[in-house]
Amino acid sequence: MISSSDLVRYQNEGRKLFERANIVITPEEAKRIEIADFGLGQTEQTGLIILVYVNTDRVCAKELVLLPGQTCPEHRHPTKGSVLGKEETFRCRWGEVYLYVPGEPVKSPKAKTPAGREKTYTVWHEIVLKPGQQYTLKPDTLHWFQGGPQGAVVSEFSTRSTDEADAFTDEEIQRITKVK
Amino acid sequence: MISSSDLVRYQNEGRKLFERANIVITPEEAKRIEIADFGLGQTEQTGLIILVYVNTDRVCAKELVLLPGQTCPEHRHPTKGSVLGKEETFRCRWGEVYLYVPGEPVKSPKAKTPAGREKTYTVWHEIVLKPGQQYTLKPDTLHWFQGGPQGAVVSEFSTRSTDEADAFTDEEIQRITKVK
Repeated sequence: MISSSDLVRYQNEGRKLFERANIVITPEEAKRIEIADFGLGQTEQTGLIILVYVNTDRVCAKELVLLPGQTCPEHRHPTKGSVLGKEETFRCRWGEVYLYVPGEPVKSPKAKTPAGREKTYTVWHEIVLKPGQQYTLKPDTLHWFQGGPQGAVVSEFSTRSTDEADAFTDEEIQRITKVK
Repeated sequence: MISSSDLVRYQNEGRKLFERANIVITPEEAKRIEIADFGLGQTEQTGLIILVYVNTDRVCAKELVLLPGQTCPEHRHPTKGSVLGKEETFRCRWGEVYLYVPGEPVKSPKAKTPAGREKTYTVWHEIVLKPGQQYTLKPDTLHWFQGGPQGAVVSEFSTRSTDEADAFTDEEIQRITKVK
């Protein structure tokens, strides 16, 4: 649950980081920037600022904005029957992002999990993405990511996005944001 | 056919426009910028500068650079049997691009077709894309586009890219660039 004033405040934070990243968006797009609070009501810690450019049956492209230290919590995009789960590529455009996937755990992670929710972060292979660097995730791969000290702007190129189908490790999470 | 010195020259032109557009690419990416001359040997008029970020079985993302007045010639991405043709979204990031698709022809087109090849341009519904503006093309749709007075940088979000399958109106065109 997010208040409508917080919604506008985070939209404005997103616009500022788009400007810092020199990414031009239209006034209409600025109004429909999405804020994901993942139902936890701690958007500063667990949240994501999203602008969907296109999402058809076949292709999706978005910009993702992370505030400094803000975390998109651990989840995967499940394959259901013969329908392959979402495949996505993250490309850092500005700032720095710490991405975690299955594999050899890093000894000293750059990210710090949101307080009180440590147990819901289970994959610790660290990938640091700076501007111009990218990483492709196959369907069904657990992952989570966090903005660096300045935050980050990340382009996401993927198959169709169906946020409501995402499977989160933290069972308290509700993907679809409710605005009060 | 393009000379290896022209290849490097156009790669450098592409890098300059990426810098003007504030798009960060890695040194490795700078080396693999592709130059399409479409086999006509008149790259300044008919050509395209391409950096493929990712191209899997399902998703492709690229940046396209057009020099001032440079044209990507008319073509479509055909459906073959049950395999749908490429669907693509062009999003202008910097400069200005003139895109032509089927529909009501524009009276005074902003683009000028490459000299001597006028007959190979048959669709004249004009869409002008400035930074932040975008357009989605369904498979099998004839289209061509040209960079404005400063050139353009355009992000392309699409299904799998199979350039060799493109169907060009101009039968002299060879999509795959040969470097001599």
